[in-house]
Amino acid sequence: MSTATLTTDLAALTANWRDLDSRTACETAAVVKADGYGLGAAEVSRALAAAGARHFFVAVAEEGVALRQALGEGPSISVFSGHMAGDTDLIAGAQLTPMLNSVDQMLRHVESLPGHPFGLQLDTGMNRLGMEAAEWDAVKAIALGQSPTLIMSHLACADTPDDDMNARQLARFREMTDGIDAPRSLAATGGILLGTEFHFDLTRPGIGLYGGLPFVDARPVVTLDIPVIQVRDVSPGETVGYGNAWMAGQPSRIATISSGYADGIIRAMGPKARLHAGDMPVPVAGRISMDLIGVDVTTLPGDPETLQLVGPHQSVDTVADFADTIGYEILTSLGARYRRVYRT
Amino acid sequence: MSTATLTTDLAALTANWRDLDSRTACETAAVVKADGYGLGAAEVSRALAAAGARHFFVAVAEEGVALRQALGEGPSISVFSGHMAGDTDLIAGAQLTPMLNSVDQMLRHVESLPGHPFGLQLDTGMNRLGMEAAEWDAVKAIALGQSPTLIMSHLACADTPDDDMNARQLARFREMTDGIDAPRSLAATGGILLGTEFHFDLTRPGIGLYGGLPFVDARPVVTLDIPVIQVRDVSPGETVGYGNAWMAGQPSRIATISSGYADGIIRAMGPKARLHAGDMPVPVAGRISMDLIGVDVTTLPGDPETLQLVGPHQSVDTVADFADTIGYEILTSLGARYRRVYRT
Repeated sequence: MSTATLTTDLAALTANWRDLDSRTACETAAVVKADGYGLGAAEVSRALAAAGARHFFVAVAEEGVALRQALGEGPSISVFSGHMAGDTDLIAGAQLTPMLNSVDQMLRHVESLPGHPFGLQLDTGMNRLGMEAAEWDAVKAIALGQSPTLIMSHLACADTPDDDMNARQLARFREMTDGIDAPRSLAATGGILLGTEFHFDLTRPGIGLYGGLPFVDARPVVTLDIPVIQVRDVSPGETVGYGNAWMAGQPSRIATISSGYADGIIRAMGPKARLHAGDMPVPVAGRISMDLIGVDVTTLPGDPETLQLVGPHQSVDTVADFADTIGYEILTSLGARYRRVYRT
Repeated sequence: MSTATLTTDLAALTANWRDLDSRTACETAAVVKADGYGLGAAEVSRALAAAGARHFFVAVAEEGVALRQALGEGPSISVFSGHMAGDTDLIAGAQLTPMLNSVDQMLRHVESLPGHPFGLQLDTGMNRLGMEAAEWDAVKAIALGQSPTLIMSHLACADTPDDDMNARQLARFREMTDGIDAPRSLAATGGILLGTEFHFDLTRPGIGLYGGLPFVDARPVVTLDIPVIQVRDVSPGETVGYGNAWMAGQPSRIATISSGYADGIIRAMGPKARLHAGDMPVPVAGRISMDLIGVDVTTLPGDPETLQLVGPHQSVDTVADFADTIGYEILTSLGARYRRVYRT
């Protein structure tokens, strides 16, 4: 079998949720968009529901429909992209709660599904999703009259606690919502860690559940073990992989492992990445190709059967550094070819 | 509906296969690993089989099993990773042909599945997959006595026609295989374009089928259209997206579209990417986030309903340049959330 094994530790995942929950006095939801940050929305959400989560967030209505099938009736499922043209049947059928982003979306919602629950997303400076202050002023009274389930906004710089954008967005959110009679939410993982004034009535952690920064106390959730297809001796001056990008400077031993950028191992990390054999680090040799990676295992005492890209010796954030990106992208890029194992 | 639409033009795909086939006097196979380079191995392979392809290549045995289900009996399915421990039942059950890479794999194959078809992969300098010259010398007589279906190797620099590595690998392949009585294969897309001496008995195009370089005459196969969730005015000095990475220098109009790096739109392309509204280019504004991208649509005469990332105005290779990568990675990163449409 040349399929790599992606192991998700659901016990660590739920421990991360409980840990983040314990840091606030309010409700803690869970963001499971992008297929549960690449780990499987159904498995992840069922584990979190069993741990006590009652409110889930997805990006688009289609994800909400799949999640409703996985979770059954009961938990609330909110949709960040709101109520788009064509979403009405999905929202009604799967009992989804759209987070309405504009007056257009609000009109669509109240006309097509009068009385159906909705939330409202406000823009507090990120200029990505949500109503602007002027729009909000125009519809606030009508909207609040229909008892929205949640009034929310999103922080642009929560991963950087010192950024004064955080205080500015908090102030704007309070200006737009203080005194209203509806639950409020501003914080995802980073916002939870910024302090209680960011918590309001509900937090929406995503990346922290999955073991990623900025939640430095997170338990690692993911392990990725890749089988070795073959190992060969390479003489000084011989090259490895596409474009002859790596040349042996000494007698070397090269393992070819069975994963590549088609499995979400971002090609850009080629020159910088390393893997582990047990606790011994071994560097990538040459370019990452579609399904294969060369690894210099010269320093190992014997030929390995598998090498580990993500695990106790190397977090998703460390792997992200190899590609000059963020742990979020490492997770959501995890490919469809892995054998997926869930530990409980 | 906030789901983006990925359209695969199967007529263009099969035209590309026929075009590459017409450039050789030998059999033309098709490489459909990594889920048909991200476009759907089942749909892609059925179209190619209908166009006349009788030989398909996948990376790992599990892909071969899925492909056999899609294609039924008849076409041959070869597996680049060879015969790994644990593969025997898959290889036997789905009538797969492993391309054996080492003496270890050869022993495993003849012991576990005596008489079952196999090919042999030789290393001619890439040091990635295949037997070294010394291994090959040791097992050549025994191997050839069992009538391998194919003797193959892979070029490391075929996308760079001037690289003398191509001639070196060709010479080595001929040294290792001239005079033997078995079909031979050295060329993928790049190798086909290098000239007839690289063609041997079978070519194995991959990227060229899907419209990518180095096949400059390829018909474009992929179109990616992304819905706009909302559009807003942004004043000079206001910022867009995470980390406030983009700031308006003039009164601007920003569209938020419903895709992101979780859909394979590589985060690194953030500052450089553009999309199209009809034939008008519009630049990304700010960082690409997981499910959303801000786009500066100030120059458009009206608000667009969708924006196009890949299509007639912008190939997968152009998009690859935005992220300093190759078209192959753009294709194989295409995400699971797209609505997939196949044109015939």
